[in-house]
Amino acid sequence: MTEFSDRFAARTHGMTASEIRSLFAVATRPEVVSLAGGMPNLSALPMDAVAEVVAQVARTSGEVALQYGSGQGVPTLREQITEVMALEGISADPNDVVVTMGSQQALDLIARIFLDPDDLVLCESPSYVGALGVFQQYQAHVVHVAMDEQGVVPSALVESIARAKAEGRQIKFLYLIPNFQNPAGISLSTHRRREILEIAAREGLLIIEDNPYGLLGFDSEPMSALRAADQDRVIYLGSFSKTFAPGFRIGWALAPSLVREKLVLASEASILCPSNFAQLAVSTYLATQPWQEQIVNFQGLYRQRRDAMLNALDAVMPSGITWTHPAGGFYVWVSLPEQINTSAMLGRAVDALVAYVPGTAFFADGSGTANLRLSYCFPSPERITEGVHRLAGVIEREISQITD
Amino acid sequence: MTEFSDRFAARTHGMTASEIRSLFAVATRPEVVSLAGGMPNLSALPMDAVAEVVAQVARTSGEVALQYGSGQGVPTLREQITEVMALEGISADPNDVVVTMGSQQALDLIARIFLDPDDLVLCESPSYVGALGVFQQYQAHVVHVAMDEQGVVPSALVESIARAKAEGRQIKFLYLIPNFQNPAGISLSTHRRREILEIAAREGLLIIEDNPYGLLGFDSEPMSALRAADQDRVIYLGSFSKTFAPGFRIGWALAPSLVREKLVLASEASILCPSNFAQLAVSTYLATQPWQEQIVNFQGLYRQRRDAMLNALDAVMPSGITWTHPAGGFYVWVSLPEQINTSAMLGRAVDALVAYVPGTAFFADGSGTANLRLSYCFPSPERITEGVHRLAGVIEREISQITD
Repeated sequence: MTEFSDRFAARTHGMTASEIRSLFAVATRPEVVSLAGGMPNLSALPMDAVAEVVAQVARTSGEVALQYGSGQGVPTLREQITEVMALEGISADPNDVVVTMGSQQALDLIARIFLDPDDLVLCESPSYVGALGVFQQYQAHVVHVAMDEQGVVPSALVESIARAKAEGRQIKFLYLIPNFQNPAGISLSTHRRREILEIAAREGLLIIEDNPYGLLGFDSEPMSALRAADQDRVIYLGSFSKTFAPGFRIGWALAPSLVREKLVLASEASILCPSNFAQLAVSTYLATQPWQEQIVNFQGLYRQRRDAMLNALDAVMPSGITWTHPAGGFYVWVSLPEQINTSAMLGRAVDALVAYVPGTAFFADGSGTANLRLSYCFPSPERITEGVHRLAGVIEREISQITD
Repeated sequence: MTEFSDRFAARTHGMTASEIRSLFAVATRPEVVSLAGGMPNLSALPMDAVAEVVAQVARTSGEVALQYGSGQGVPTLREQITEVMALEGISADPNDVVVTMGSQQALDLIARIFLDPDDLVLCESPSYVGALGVFQQYQAHVVHVAMDEQGVVPSALVESIARAKAEGRQIKFLYLIPNFQNPAGISLSTHRRREILEIAAREGLLIIEDNPYGLLGFDSEPMSALRAADQDRVIYLGSFSKTFAPGFRIGWALAPSLVREKLVLASEASILCPSNFAQLAVSTYLATQPWQEQIVNFQGLYRQRRDAMLNALDAVMPSGITWTHPAGGFYVWVSLPEQINTSAMLGRAVDALVAYVPGTAFFADGSGTANLRLSYCFPSPERITEGVHRLAGVIEREISQITD
């Protein structure tokens, strides 16, 4: 069969399993504290209620739930999705919602309808590894735009646009995760949202707003979405993976009608239709269960873990190390002295029974060698504390080797 | 937002909603007998048992079922899938199975890893509309290979290969639906299977064997799969959509390891992972329910409908019309006098309260203008009979207009 590998498409050339994977296989051993994964913590979900929901779907709507459905998704669910988005100030027509198999599929469909090889895409710096992977498979060229503690820096965005113009290249879109960003744990400030939208309007920039964590803030009401202020220029991606559960694989895209039509056609070619059963399960959950209270439960659970992580970092990290202070979501972004290579360090960390994701995973250009992402979503607060202690030990040894 | 349509990718150019769609919207009116769709008939499914299965998944495996899973799919299900394939003579390692969201996603992944723009793909003549749509989105060039009542014609295949060679073009693969083909209702004979495999071995041809209907034969044991005879040269696609239910969107690909690795990476970029809940629901159904008896029930249900359709066609179709006699699956392929355009006729058929799919849908090259596909899977035998009567009336009027 080796003879067939010579007929793989050009897009497969960058499609290789990362070395990190084999380390992660090791990191799933129970003695390793994994601060690497982004799995939501489902311990707070009432499984008996979910069992009742799915049984009800099969009993009362079985012939619909088990059948093929529409490529765009179940109308009732699309209507409920507009109610979820209303919590972040979005006013939307259910006809402009496309249900997808998680927001990963939405990202894939966006890439499919917009990206030709060598096209230009702007991303935050760092950005979501799964989005970078999709853009790479569509052979696009990713340019990272600098962030600070308020999110994407407007002057850096303007500069990137000017540079693309000078090179005669069109930017296909700007990809943003405005709330509790993955991996940086940073949110785009209200003032910055206005500035970014102004730049987008002036420069004819399309924005992809990916917002899986927006309702998982710890301290305040959800911020107003970019899409709430600009319905023509922003394609919004949402997901039930963090506010309910990822196992049904239900996310969505909200897009202006011309784009929405193409997204539906692309999705039909890709999967025919999302699962009717999964859609009706989510729809029935929203209709019959206290889903907003459940989100408050999730917020409490993640706040407690965020606190455990920040307290442990404060207590034990050597000087010269900095990290972000997320007000929601799952992640803390850590910056080490630039001589430290976090990819090389990972093996030693796993030996010390703690795992993280090296920073380079979140860049398309090889940056991030001295950064790492810690996630606090899944382990218990005690395990998080223990994991950060182990990591501090590993980092101390790296620093002492540098200074030797 | 019109301003963003100028930045759509090249692959979207052929991505338009067909005119047929608007007619089908009309065809869903209850007074229209639809012989168009390929929806399996779920009336024979025991919904209480399914309700028990899904509730059990949530109660006993909730934290796994509702969580993210592996890109390749749940190991237990992959093992059960090898047992399903064993019914068609396939011996397979669960490690070479990739679970997909229906076999449509498997087709998409195959296209993604093999097809660059202008690449050559061979398909039956006619072929599955959903596969043609995927190949088109990946900008491949489809060449149809002639079929007769025994399936793909070996000499025609050899000719197509020679022509490609003469043009200096590599054929990426041959796409086949060997059993109860969609739309032709024809099966590749045992003798032909051997011949096609010999040609493939001689010419270095990769075969995609798409087999959603193989277990739905009416008269005999399942035929041996192409993959059963050649594990290096055949990528096999299967699905639970017709043997259980499409609503969970669970299918699979079985591929040699080099290809399988790329399929998993492509799937992760596309959807991260298939739904754990859906996979465990199918797995639990297979483990706890009499699924093989259920397939026998489906066979009986479809046999009765096939008989109703063939009897009605025999009784009322005008002379000069021919059709295939499927021994399984969902479809009958009808050939009309060549002056008749079945796309143009569809509107008049819907006016006469019967719907079908025009033949051109199943060709990438504009052929099939005088063909149509009838499906007998979903309506009751009485409705099928009524629908064929209505269609015969429509065709008689077309013929009388030709001869006027």
